[in-house]
Order: sequence, then C-alpha cells, then structure tokens
Amino acid sequence: MNHSSPQTLRRAIPAAALAACALALPDTALAASGAGGGESEIARVLLALVIVLIAAKLGGSLFVRIGQPAVLGELVFGIAIGNLYLLGFHAFDFIKTDASVRMLSEIGVALLLFQVGLESDLDKMMKVGASSLVVATIGIICPFLLGWGVSSIFLPHESVYVHIFIGAVLCATSVGITARVMLDLGWLQTQEARIILGAAVIDDVQGLIILAVVSGVIGAAAKGHGALPASGVILIVVKATAFLLGALLIGRWIAPRLFQLASRLRAADLLLTTALAICFSFAYLAAQIGLAPIVGAFAAGLILDEIHWRSFRDRGEHSVEELVKPLTAFLVPVFFVVMGARVELKTFAQPGVLGMAAALTVAAILGKQACGLGVLQKGLDRLSVGIGMIPRGEVGLIFAAIGSQLRLNGHTVVAPATFSVIVIMVIVTTLITPPALKWSVARGSRLRAIREPAEGSEGSR
Amino acid sequence: MNHSSPQTLRRAIPAAALAACALALPDTALAASGAGGGESEIARVLLALVIVLIAAKLGGSLFVRIGQPAVLGELVFGIAIGNLYLLGFHAFDFIKTDASVRMLSEIGVALLLFQVGLESDLDKMMKVGASSLVVATIGIICPFLLGWGVSSIFLPHESVYVHIFIGAVLCATSVGITARVMLDLGWLQTQEARIILGAAVIDDVQGLIILAVVSGVIGAAAKGHGALPASGVILIVVKATAFLLGALLIGRWIAPRLFQLASRLRAADLLLTTALAICFSFAYLAAQIGLAPIVGAFAAGLILDEIHWRSFRDRGEHSVEELVKPLTAFLVPVFFVVMGARVELKTFAQPGVLGMAAALTVAAILGKQACGLGVLQKGLDRLSVGIGMIPRGEVGLIFAAIGSQLRLNGHTVVAPATFSVIVIMVIVTTLITPPALKWSVARGSRLRAIREPAEGSEGSR
Repeated sequence: MNHSSPQTLRRAIPAAALAACALALPDTALAASGAGGGESEIARVLLALVIVLIAAKLGGSLFVRIGQPAVLGELVFGIAIGNLYLLGFHAFDFIKTDASVRMLSEIGVALLLFQVGLESDLDKMMKVGASSLVVATIGIICPFLLGWGVSSIFLPHESVYVHIFIGAVLCATSVGITARVMLDLGWLQTQEARIILGAAVIDDVQGLIILAVVSGVIGAAAKGHGALPASGVILIVVKATAFLLGALLIGRWIAPRLFQLASRLRAADLLLTTALAICFSFAYLAAQIGLAPIVGAFAAGLILDEIHWRSFRDRGEHSVEELVKPLTAFLVPVFFVVMGARVELKTFAQPGVLGMAAALTVAAILGKQACGLGVLQKGLDRLSVGIGMIPRGEVGLIFAAIGSQLRLNGHTVVAPATFSVIVIMVIVTTLITPPALKWSVARGSRLRAIREPAEGSEGSR
Repeated sequence: MNHSSPQTLRRAIPAAALAACALALPDTALAASGAGGGESEIARVLLALVIVLIAAKLGGSLFVRIGQPAVLGELVFGIAIGNLYLLGFHAFDFIKTDASVRMLSEIGVALLLFQVGLESDLDKMMKVGASSLVVATIGIICPFLLGWGVSSIFLPHESVYVHIFIGAVLCATSVGITARVMLDLGWLQTQEARIILGAAVIDDVQGLIILAVVSGVIGAAAKGHGALPASGVILIVVKATAFLLGALLIGRWIAPRLFQLASRLRAADLLLTTALAICFSFAYLAAQIGLAPIVGAFAAGLILDEIHWRSFRDRGEHSVEELVKPLTAFLVPVFFVVMGARVELKTFAQPGVLGMAAALTVAAILGKQACGLGVLQKGLDRLSVGIGMIPRGEVGLIFAAIGSQLRLNGHTVVAPATFSVIVIMVIVTTLITPPALKWSVARGSRLRAIREPAEGSEGSR
C-alpha cells in the first residue's frame, strides 16, 4: 500500500461508485464488464434502457401522486428491478452489472450536476461561501466522531484504526440525491440550496484529504511505523485547491473565449458541443485528481454563463440549459434507477448486522444535523441544510470498498459484516433524504410565511 | 456450425459492427472491453468524449469550408485520431477499443436513424415502396454477381463457396452515412431520399436472408452434405416480415395509445421518455431478430407522428423532433468519429492486397449504380439513388467477420488477406459517398431546375 497516493487508491476501485451497492462487488462488476464483447451487447443495453426508462416514469409518477419526490420512486422501482431475483425472476439481473449501463448512468449524474451548476450562480454561491465552509467542516467532524464511537461500542475488540476508518466512511456527502430533489422542487435558487451545494464541493475535497490521511496512517501502521504521510496529504490539498481555483478563475476566463472561437466554426450544434466538451473535460480533470467527476461537472456548469453564448443566442439558438435538458431527461433517471437496482435487499437479512447498522445510520443522520448550526446567515432553514447533507451515496461506498482491501494485522480493516453495515447505512441515508427534504422544505416555507409574510421572495420557494 | 440460426451467427460477432474496421478485430475489441472495470473507466470515457467532440466539430467545420459534407470531416478526423499511433503517438489509441465509447456511438447511430424516421413520412415512403423494392433487389443481385466475378478472377484456386461469400459481402447497404448526408443537406424530404431509405430497410432484410443461405450452404458443405437450410431461411423471412409489418401496423396502432397513457402519468419529460422507450424497444426487437438495430430505430421514427403527442404539445412542450436533436447532436458525431478512428490505415500498406481491393471496390460501386435503373418514377435523380446505396459500412464487415470464422476444407472462408481487401472496400465506399452524394445532388438539382423551372418544389431542395 503506497500511502503517498490515496487518490490512486480511490480511483483504483473498479468503477466502484455504483457497483459497490452490491455486496460482493469487485467480482460481479468485473465479470459483467468483461462480457462487454459478448453476444449482442447493444441489444442488452437497449433492453436495459427501455426497462429503466419505463420504471423511472412509473415509479416517479406513483411517488409524486403520493406526495413524494419523483427521485424516490425511481430509486424504489430500481430496488424492485434489482431484487426481483429474490422471487426467482432473473430477467433483469443484467441491469445491475452491465458496464455500459453503468457508464450511461455516470454520464447522467455528471450531466445532472452540470445542469444544476448552470442554474446556479457563482457570485451568489460565493456570498454564502463562509457558511458552506463551516457546514462542510462540521459535517465532517461530527459524523467522524460519532462513527468512531459507534464502531468502538459495537466492535470493541478491533483496533483503533478500524474505528477511525469507520468514522471516515461517515464523512463524505453525496450531493446527487439532494441536487435532484432541489431541482425537482424548484428549490435551487434558495440560499439553503447554495450552501448545501458549496458544502458538498468542499466536503468532497475534505473527504479526499481524510481518506488520504486515514489510509496513509493505516498503511504506515501495517508496515510497523507510524509516519504520517504529510507530503502526500499536502500534494492532494494543493492539487484539489489548484483544480477548484483553476476551474473557477481560469475556466471563467477561458470559457467565453472558447465559445467565441466555436462560434466561428462552420458546424451544427456548436453551442451544445462546446458546453459538453467543457463539462466533460472538467469532470475528467476532477477524476484525475481523485475528486468525484460530478464536482468537476458542477464547477463547469457554475462558470458557464448566459453571456458566453450571446453570439449563439443572437442567431436564435436555444440556450445551453434548454439544450442540456433532453440529455438529462434521458440519462438522469438511468442513474437513479440503476442506483436503486444495485441495492441488495439481502443485506438487510443479516440479523447480526442490523443493530450496528441502525446505530451507524443514526450516527450518520445526527452527525450531519449538526451542519445546520454552521449556517451563518439568519433566518435560513437550518433543518433543511442538515437534511440535505445526509445522503452518503457512492462516496461512502468507495471508502468502504477501499477499507475492505486494506489489511492490518492479518485481516481486512473493513470486514465483510462491517461492509454490510456500511451498505445499509448508505441505502437508508439515500432513501430517507428525498421525503425528509421535501417535508422540511415545506415546513420551512410555512414557518417563514408565518414569520415574514411581507417578504417571502427568495429562499421560500 | 448450426446453419439453422444465422441470425445467431450475426449476433455472435463480438459487437463487431464497428470494431471490425480494425484488422485483428476480435482480440483487440475483447481485450479493451475486458478492461471495463479497470482504473477510472469513467475518466477514460469522459476524455474520449472530449477528444471526439472537438475532433468532430473541427473536422466537420473544415470540410464544410472546403465544400464537403460535415460527416466526411468527422470520418477523416476520426481516421487521424485512430492512426496517430503510426507516428508514435499512442494517447488516443484507447478510443478505438473502449467498449463504452463504442456503445455510446451505437446508441448515437440508432438515434440518428430514429430522427431520420421522425422526419420521414410513412405514407409518402409507401408511395415509392415499389421503387424501393426494385432498387434494393437490383442492389443485391448486381454486386453479388460482380463480387463473385472479382473473387473468381483474383482467387482462382479458391472454391466456389468463397466466391459466393465475397459476393454476399458486397450486398448489404449501410444507410447511416447516406442518412446523415441527406439530413445535413436538407434532402430528406425528396422522393429519392425516401426510395433510398426504404431500399436500405429492404436491403437489410434481404442481406439477412442471403447471409442465412450462404453460411448455411457453406456449413452444410463443410459437413459434407449439400442440404439447403430451407426451414432456417423461411424462419428468418417470417420473423423479419413479422417484425416490419408488426412495427408498422401494430406499432402505429399502439403508439398513440402509449402516448395517451404516458400523458396521464405525473412525471417530467414523459414525451421524450416515451419516444425513446419506443425507439429503443424497436431497435432491441430488430437486433433480436438479427436485423440491424438501426432498422428498428428507423421504423420507430417512421410510425411516430406529430398527432400522437398532441396532448403534450397542447401543454406547450417541445415536439419529439426538437427534443431528440440535442441527443443526436451529442452522440451522432461520436459514431462517425469512432467509425473513422477504427479505420486501420496500415491495411492499405499491404501491396499484394491492393489490386483485388481496387477491383472489389469498383465492383461494389458499379453494382449499386445499377440501382438507379430500379427507380420507377420518372424525372427522379437516378444517379443520386445509386450513389446513396454505395456505402457498405458495418454490415459488410459483419459478413466478413463471420466469414473469417467459417471453416471449409481446413481453412477459413475469408482468409486474413481477403479480410483486408473487404476492409479497404468498406473504407473507400464509406468515404467516397458523402462527397459523391453532395456532388450528384447538386448536379441533379441543377438539371431539374433547367428542365422544370416552374416546379422545383419537392425533390429539388
């Protein structure tokens, strides 16, 4: 284990992001992608897309009817698709493991964050930047300590490194779910949404640092010496900071020039193509540094501005927001249904695991509730900020997957049972967020309407 | 070799469609897709998309400036990307072999044909149906005989089965290139375009039958008995006919009802999602039968009609055509650039191969020129119909790949050198079509403008 490059570690997980929801993850994921050249790969992907799109719309519609966000319906119908095999029906099993479907879903979530970035305003986000930083930092520290505590209670015989690692697993927020709910509820233009989005970006950077430190410390301990991988951590901080500053400052300077150049070309669809090229290159750079690709896609969306494509608009073309919408309409449901399909309900059937899972889930939820206290502005809906930070999603699973490969004193840091515990925590925090967020936003709006009946403009939509 | 199921044969080629442009195809294709779970698959795909999109727009723009169709620029810049390794630059090599990029490109070409189908009118296509049938049939018979002739001249020591097989390779038209050129030139609403599109569909069915017969005959010969696989052939004819009739008749009856049902759901983006679900399920069914997925996608586009989504339009939503455009803007260039990238220029460097390649290419081009004679309507541009039928694309390569796996008297029906010959034929017919079609359409329009200066509405756009 080379503790100087934990971003390599994080990347080394076989496209773990989603695959990891399955228990025996690396094997199935690899076996499936290895079949990429098998019989009629394209037919399989087409069938998967049909099933996923129908499930997304039926599930979304049903849950909207019962007053829940559409994304919860997509997740739940996805869970149904992925677990019908428990009833002996195996026709949908391939959807969970097909490499191309996973790839489409990952492009989908990158485009979702790109769209959210496009509809967000960088200057307004900067105004709540201090709150985002405090929210992110509290949202790292509290879950870390609570996770450590839960681990030391339920796994008293394990070393302190295991407790540290489980604490680290609880840190990182997965912003996909929250961004989708906020988009669906038309809540994206509120200050609370901006704080959460900013905090999620900072969170991802801090999570990367924690992963570096923790796996470095454990790596060093395994080798019998306790050196902290200071140089590696500094390198990560420098890289991540350079990427974010570079994206926001240099990107903001370059983007209008790129659109200017593109507008001189004589080809169709230049506006959308240029925007996508910027989105994908930012996502690529983020992934290269070890950040989540969605952080790069979000940053790309943030820096792009209506003004940049004025020369295209003057020709009567649609705006980038409008052009991206059909892409997200197609691919975003793929992400959430596939995310649901990868949930293994079997995990919940392990009796010895459920106690610790319940405790860890409560720790995960409570830990992020402290985030609300980090909101510096007055009169904002702190509860919704805390709830928006709850989902752990794929980031927690990536941590867990790394832990299941780290060895210390002859056994893995994250044992199979512990991995199940973490998977349950991720599932519950993911599923609980859409309804909880919808409830708290409605509640916050009511409260505010009572308190400030005169205003009620921003933040209360 | 089970000669009763040649559609299985055709499907069994490891996603050969595009991969086959490389000489040593199954190995590289499989090796690459096997790496699907490797390090940061998503980052690789993002990088590939950035490179491909930039190449598509630079290439397209450059070629439009020199008076050529954009698609030729995309192909040529794709060839550059795929062959830079000859100059020792290997950074782009992964684009040729990445399974996810190939999948995106195949979804792209399916969406292109869906879009072309949407913009085509089934009734108007039926009016030229007789011409399409004659054009398709001539376009099968002439190239078949010419291919047989070329093979018997250049490979005098081979058995008659090899000549038959090479004749069969020359039959099937690949409509992707022609559809794209016609779309770019705004020529889709002409009778000539309708004849070509109809002929391409019939062609694909006839090609399937020929493949069944030829590989069945060779399979039987290899086993030492000469039985014609009549039942297998009949099964294919029944299946293909049932699919096309079912798609056009039942599909046309069901589609408005599906949109009606969908409009009652309470979810976002239902119009696009329903349309895509229909497109992908038709493409899937086509692939299951052994037809090209694009034939199914085209049929889906054909049966969908403005009237079907009136209830959505009344709510002020965009039409399906408009919603599909950003998807094709994103994914269609991926198809053509990747198609170019898979061209191995090395193939042309085999001196012993070039003579037969030149002869076979001429046979392929001349054979389809006879198609023009099949146009029953008077005053149409027969030359453009013939040129529009030239490209062989992936279908010829699928045939060749199957031939390279069929064994007869101890050696393969399509020897490696013959395979190179076929690859060169495919490359040249693909690259020659966009400029030739642009030239002939412009010429046809001029001729017609001279002959009928009063009309000049349809057919001369």
